[in-house]
Amino acid sequence: MKEFDTRGRSIEDSTIDPANVELLRIAKKDGIDTAFDRVQKQEPKCTFCEEGVSCRTCNMGPCRITPNSPRGVCGATADTIVARGLLQNTIGGAASHMDHARHVAILLREAGMGNAPYEIKDEAKLRRIAGGLGIEGADTKDKKLLAMEVANRALEDLGRQHGEDAMDWIKLHAPEERIDTWKKLGILPFGGNVVVNEGMHRRTMGVDADPVNIILGMLKTGIVDGYGGLAMSTDLQDILFGSPSPKISEAGLGVLREDYINISTHGHVPLLSEKIVDAAEDLEEEAIKAGAKGINVVGLCCTGIELLERKGIPIAGNELNTETAIITGAMEAVVVDYQCIYPGLVPVADNFHTKVITTADIAKIPGAEHIEFNEKEADKVAKKIVRLAIDNFKNRDPKRVNIPNVKSKVMAGFSPEVLVAVLSKINKEDPLKPLVDAITEGKIRGAVAIVGCNNPRVKHDFMNVEIARELIKRNVLVISTGCVATAHAKSGLMNPDTAYKEAGEDLQGVLKVLGKAAGMEALPPVLNFGSCVDNSRIGDLLKALSDRIGVPIKDLPVLASAPEYTTEKALSIGTWAVSLGVTTHINPPPRISGSQLVTKILTEDAEGLVGATVFTGSDPVETARVMIEKIEEKRRKLGLN
Amino acid sequence: MKEFDTRGRSIEDSTIDPANVELLRIAKKDGIDTAFDRVQKQEPKCTFCEEGVSCRTCNMGPCRITPNSPRGVCGATADTIVARGLLQNTIGGAASHMDHARHVAILLREAGMGNAPYEIKDEAKLRRIAGGLGIEGADTKDKKLLAMEVANRALEDLGRQHGEDAMDWIKLHAPEERIDTWKKLGILPFGGNVVVNEGMHRRTMGVDADPVNIILGMLKTGIVDGYGGLAMSTDLQDILFGSPSPKISEAGLGVLREDYINISTHGHVPLLSEKIVDAAEDLEEEAIKAGAKGINVVGLCCTGIELLERKGIPIAGNELNTETAIITGAMEAVVVDYQCIYPGLVPVADNFHTKVITTADIAKIPGAEHIEFNEKEADKVAKKIVRLAIDNFKNRDPKRVNIPNVKSKVMAGFSPEVLVAVLSKINKEDPLKPLVDAITEGKIRGAVAIVGCNNPRVKHDFMNVEIARELIKRNVLVISTGCVATAHAKSGLMNPDTAYKEAGEDLQGVLKVLGKAAGMEALPPVLNFGSCVDNSRIGDLLKALSDRIGVPIKDLPVLASAPEYTTEKALSIGTWAVSLGVTTHINPPPRISGSQLVTKILTEDAEGLVGATVFTGSDPVETARVMIEKIEEKRRKLGLN
Repeated sequence: MKEFDTRGRSIEDSTIDPANVELLRIAKKDGIDTAFDRVQKQEPKCTFCEEGVSCRTCNMGPCRITPNSPRGVCGATADTIVARGLLQNTIGGAASHMDHARHVAILLREAGMGNAPYEIKDEAKLRRIAGGLGIEGADTKDKKLLAMEVANRALEDLGRQHGEDAMDWIKLHAPEERIDTWKKLGILPFGGNVVVNEGMHRRTMGVDADPVNIILGMLKTGIVDGYGGLAMSTDLQDILFGSPSPKISEAGLGVLREDYINISTHGHVPLLSEKIVDAAEDLEEEAIKAGAKGINVVGLCCTGIELLERKGIPIAGNELNTETAIITGAMEAVVVDYQCIYPGLVPVADNFHTKVITTADIAKIPGAEHIEFNEKEADKVAKKIVRLAIDNFKNRDPKRVNIPNVKSKVMAGFSPEVLVAVLSKINKEDPLKPLVDAITEGKIRGAVAIVGCNNPRVKHDFMNVEIARELIKRNVLVISTGCVATAHAKSGLMNPDTAYKEAGEDLQGVLKVLGKAAGMEALPPVLNFGSCVDNSRIGDLLKALSDRIGVPIKDLPVLASAPEYTTEKALSIGTWAVSLGVTTHINPPPRISGSQLVTKILTEDAEGLVGATVFTGSDPVETARVMIEKIEEKRRKLGLN
Repeated sequence: MKEFDTRGRSIEDSTIDPANVELLRIAKKDGIDTAFDRVQKQEPKCTFCEEGVSCRTCNMGPCRITPNSPRGVCGATADTIVARGLLQNTIGGAASHMDHARHVAILLREAGMGNAPYEIKDEAKLRRIAGGLGIEGADTKDKKLLAMEVANRALEDLGRQHGEDAMDWIKLHAPEERIDTWKKLGILPFGGNVVVNEGMHRRTMGVDADPVNIILGMLKTGIVDGYGGLAMSTDLQDILFGSPSPKISEAGLGVLREDYINISTHGHVPLLSEKIVDAAEDLEEEAIKAGAKGINVVGLCCTGIELLERKGIPIAGNELNTETAIITGAMEAVVVDYQCIYPGLVPVADNFHTKVITTADIAKIPGAEHIEFNEKEADKVAKKIVRLAIDNFKNRDPKRVNIPNVKSKVMAGFSPEVLVAVLSKINKEDPLKPLVDAITEGKIRGAVAIVGCNNPRVKHDFMNVEIARELIKRNVLVISTGCVATAHAKSGLMNPDTAYKEAGEDLQGVLKVLGKAAGMEALPPVLNFGSCVDNSRIGDLLKALSDRIGVPIKDLPVLASAPEYTTEKALSIGTWAVSLGVTTHINPPPRISGSQLVTKILTEDAEGLVGATVFTGSDPVETARVMIEKIEEKRRKLGLN
């Protein structure tokens, strides 16, 4: 994997984010270790682990596949070991998203019962989901009672232990054509957690040794993530906190404010962070008494995007900004929930006055302060945390404050519902028609969902941003989520005033028409569809387009990409995309190079199973070229020019 | 880990089983690779994986902890990485057992509904469990209806997604003192699969980084295994197939019969193997027509023990006999379900006429024949498999048949119920009194449950057997399960006619009295408590003793040991034992040596949490000495001489 060797890389070669360049220089000067340093110290990597051919499941090992030892002690081959490793990582992702969904469902249930200080902000969506679930009185019943019933159905769906039928959330969101395909392949989940449990079983010593069967199990895990994880989280969060709507805000570390108490919310589940925003408003006076001009709550990672898309809270950065945000010296508190929280935040914060505050019982960090979130006392917990930040303001060393003057205007808050609302201003009867026409006429050649992470093995944001630029130039619409959306936001690609000019002429035309309908000059050519769990919204859009055009998703000119893939969650989201029939680019490659068979299954044979494959590529220009080739091929097959 | 280096080891140094010595010589001559060869080829092992300090959860890695890179890219320390690895392995075990329990529950449900050709063999136990669950009409309701209700409750228990209370199967089997302890520690499971799901979440990148918190999560996983896995499987299997009762049978590869069609059932879940036994009886005529004297069904691994304890079917061997059983050249079919099925069986079978038949949809092996088990057509599937074996008899090469003349008489089928039945012949009012008296008077110094696996890194069966011999000599009662029970069976330690003479004089006296009550000369000093899921029976016995004596389990003079530990399941069972308050020996050590902190938590601090710790040791004499020291310490604390 020579191309990902990071040793000796300069700061300028590590990131395209100018704020990070500035702050990493300070880190270097002050001897502060960040992920950018640690990734270099991890070179050279172990080739066995990198190729996926080491196994430490059972205690007969650890085993490694070599020419002299072509099988592990149990007899597992490289193919088996690679497939199991991949399945296990996919399980880690699906489990994370389903745990997230469960926590939101429990909160919704408590809110419905009046036990937790949360409102039902999107009653219409609640009633729509309840109707889809076939709950009696979905249109008429008291909204709190209904919320409790929907939450109970969600929890049942996650817990179901037997059945033949698809889980409810699959029936709510997946195309029928897909449900049939998955049923035929024997990978249609009837319940949520059971897929994780079964998967952890099948990958243990002496269970599944058949790589094809294991990869089918991986697809099943991706499907359960897509619906039991992503879609369920999104639906229930929308019900609780309101569905997103277009918001203008700012992105980049420059959103931190020197005279203010800065609090960043970081993680994925917005249950507490919504309350932090409220508490910060309530405690403004106390902040002023403490000598600040006020409290500045900013977002990091997906929790940040959840606040951006619903409240317009500025987003300070993505994953690889989480440590440098502390190095600004202006951060009073980093409040984290779970997922993608580097344990490295604490040693970075030890160099400053910043307090890292963990809040989830399953996500503690040695050296951090733990203030446990409790849905019933959410307001109290949020106030306690904000007061801790206020109190910490006095410990800030003004001489060490360095907030880079780097930020971009961003438009966020897109979703299928928002697009339909905009489009229906053009065609009320058949809102999707203008979009479908643009695709069939070739003004939009196709669409690529660019999603996922940052990964310091890749130049920070470089792949995420450059692929997008290459695509929009060639009239391919880009939709992004998660850390990629924030990369696009920071790079100005979501600034509707200017970014649409970076698009090809045809796409520019469409964006102008749509923008006009939306009451502005143009829409941005890269649409911010939200956090990582909001990838479900992309699935909904694809289903709507597929239904409208009358063609399965697998035949649409659409692709997915995770150009700086890090987490198990990104892997399972990608697996879901492939199971949906969306060919997916992934970089750096997952750990499959040790098995030609597994590589072939994913890059070739999957086409016959689900109508989509996986491909890799670390050069953005070349990757975009391949993407456009694949899009044009789909168009030709549909008879489109 | 130099002591486990297996390179250049002779056959005689690899196993104490004379049948294996004989067959491994043939393997060597014929160039057939077995686990005994593969374990040598895996030397030297990777020290990073061995010490638990490599991480490949996310794609920023793989990472390794070295003096130059004390943290992974995310910032995780060796402590975090080691703890997460251990948690993950424990999850693999708990998930396996809960999937097993789920499959049995689904079968029980179908049987109750009249959809599957299975009877309710232990109606009394069904009614007892139903009563314990608080099901109305437990004493009077139609047994099939009741079976369905119990099965539904089991499935609910596995699926539950929220709650404060313990899961039903914990309330059925765990001591109240433990439930309180676990609740205080925040590790009391309310549901089954959710613990696996949460655990897979907490170990992913950026979630739990606190080693103490992660180890608490590991204990929670062990608890869910003990009840949602082991106890539930045992209860439902007893209901379906009957509770075990003392049986005399034979153990060792010598149970294969030259003139018969030999079929071995291998794996863990006896749903199909019970039917194979029936089908073999039904098709005896066809076997005779095919030129054999009949059909000889034998057991391997835990599926074998399930048949032994309920039907007296001979047990051919444990894990490290599964490949050599094929090398006898006399095996027509190896029918496998799941868990501990070496993929290496297939290449071994390729050297002979033997057919390896996989039967579970989640456990296929390339090159094996797959005949899928289906509870509704269980009889049909079983007959198809037996006929395939009959048909395969003609392919046997008589010149290559080598069945070692090695077998031992074995008494199996023990359980708390059986012990109480025997003891009540001595004291009907207070059946446990004779046993409690023997313990308090010191005739039985204490008891050790020796459980778990084979592991070719250890001389096959050596540790399992020698520790037992050392203990019984010193008047410590031994209870064993799984591959250890089969090691003890093969070694004659479960032959009631002779083995009790190997016990210390005091223990001999007790065994004679008990034996007499049971209608024989003496009971064996090593009691076969069944398969690995039957470890739940040991938990039940400990609870009964603890209740009777009025002392928590943690204060009883009892220990557990897994002297040749291989599987993730053994790790999770051991974790359950520790959570119960039973100090546990484990060998070879789990992968914790890379973290002094995790090692300290498990070997020292766990005492303060749950009243038990973990210790290691690879010398059987020294290990037994340490065990006796710990037992005597417990006795002293109880005021016993």
